[in-house]
Amino acid sequence: MKIVAAKKILKANDQLAAENREHFRAAGVFVVNILGSPGGGKTSLIEALHARLPIRRGLSVIEGDVAGTLDADRLIAQGIPSVQIATEGICHLDANMISVASRELDLAKCDWLFIENVGNLVCPAGFDLGENIRLVLLSVPEGDDKVIKYPTVFQSSNAVVVSKIDLLPYFDFRLERVRDDLSKLNPTAPVFAVSAKTGEGMDELVAWLAKAAPGHY
Amino acid sequence: MKIVAAKKILKANDQLAAENREHFRAAGVFVVNILGSPGGGKTSLIEALHARLPIRRGLSVIEGDVAGTLDADRLIAQGIPSVQIATEGICHLDANMISVASRELDLAKCDWLFIENVGNLVCPAGFDLGENIRLVLLSVPEGDDKVIKYPTVFQSSNAVVVSKIDLLPYFDFRLERVRDDLSKLNPTAPVFAVSAKTGEGMDELVAWLAKAAPGHY
Repeated sequence: MKIVAAKKILKANDQLAAENREHFRAAGVFVVNILGSPGGGKTSLIEALHARLPIRRGLSVIEGDVAGTLDADRLIAQGIPSVQIATEGICHLDANMISVASRELDLAKCDWLFIENVGNLVCPAGFDLGENIRLVLLSVPEGDDKVIKYPTVFQSSNAVVVSKIDLLPYFDFRLERVRDDLSKLNPTAPVFAVSAKTGEGMDELVAWLAKAAPGHY
Repeated sequence: MKIVAAKKILKANDQLAAENREHFRAAGVFVVNILGSPGGGKTSLIEALHARLPIRRGLSVIEGDVAGTLDADRLIAQGIPSVQIATEGICHLDANMISVASRELDLAKCDWLFIENVGNLVCPAGFDLGENIRLVLLSVPEGDDKVIKYPTVFQSSNAVVVSKIDLLPYFDFRLERVRDDLSKLNPTAPVFAVSAKTGEGMDELVAWLAKAAPGHY
């Protein structure tokens, strides 16, 4: 009997992720994987991006949660095509889940696909889903020390979004600390400070995403 | 070659947890395992409890983080004996880590031991550490929908602490929703609404903990 080591499971995930990436590329879909803590504002960020991104065919969402369909229900109520993955206890999405879930979406009506990962700053970082861009969200109430505490997720992301900046007056949160800690860990990743509620900072993030999506905009 | 299934690994963890529990009981130490999202206020809650709990011999802390020693440094600076476990990528504490870390503490000078788990609402829920009481923290900025989204952690905890209630005026957070969702999942668990910053609600939590520690107070 053979032991299937964790490294091989991750390798199998990487193969599926590469297939997803090619599948999405061929369909002309640009994929953004959003990571962050529970309640950091991932769904609100997707709503704010939906209202501001240049969209030709459409924007769809794959929602990942341990249980329930709250986030997909919320997005569908706003007319955003969404599929909910209920991981039933699993702490992260993987490439196979995305492969299955994406079959439920009409990719012909989609040039942006946002994947909202399970709320978790640790486990999702290890799993490539076949995305083009990985964003990690850090909300102001969580505190400015998270880059040090959760290095893998910040190291593996293409950009950091500091969310809920409308709350900066109520917290001792130093944006400079986040930038400093990140500059040692992941010096090429930009930091976007945004409020999905007020719209502050959203233009810069939208411009960066539109530029990152090659041939799209 | 034998496959070691996940169930057996958890069973091995449960055995070690039972040994920890007996070890702590014999030493007269009451152990509280605190779970919650990154940045939910776990360390601040421990500081607020340290200032208010009845303490005869002492209160010590085992800190769990993926990387760094920020939280233990912070507590030690306040004179609270603390040991930092750096899990190096692992998303939760386990009973073996606690067994090793507790050897670094002088249990004779300790009647309360607080364990601050890795910031994560998913994975730590599956691992008994040998604690007497498991608390799950839900901070107001995270939103009132988390009981539905992360049922296992709320189901497996002895009490729920809603933290940062000084921020209630700035958020659309309904305490009643948390109570309602919890009453279906874990009807015997009390909900304590507290602010470590202002001290609001801390007396009720302190009284409940002091009563839970049998023969202590």
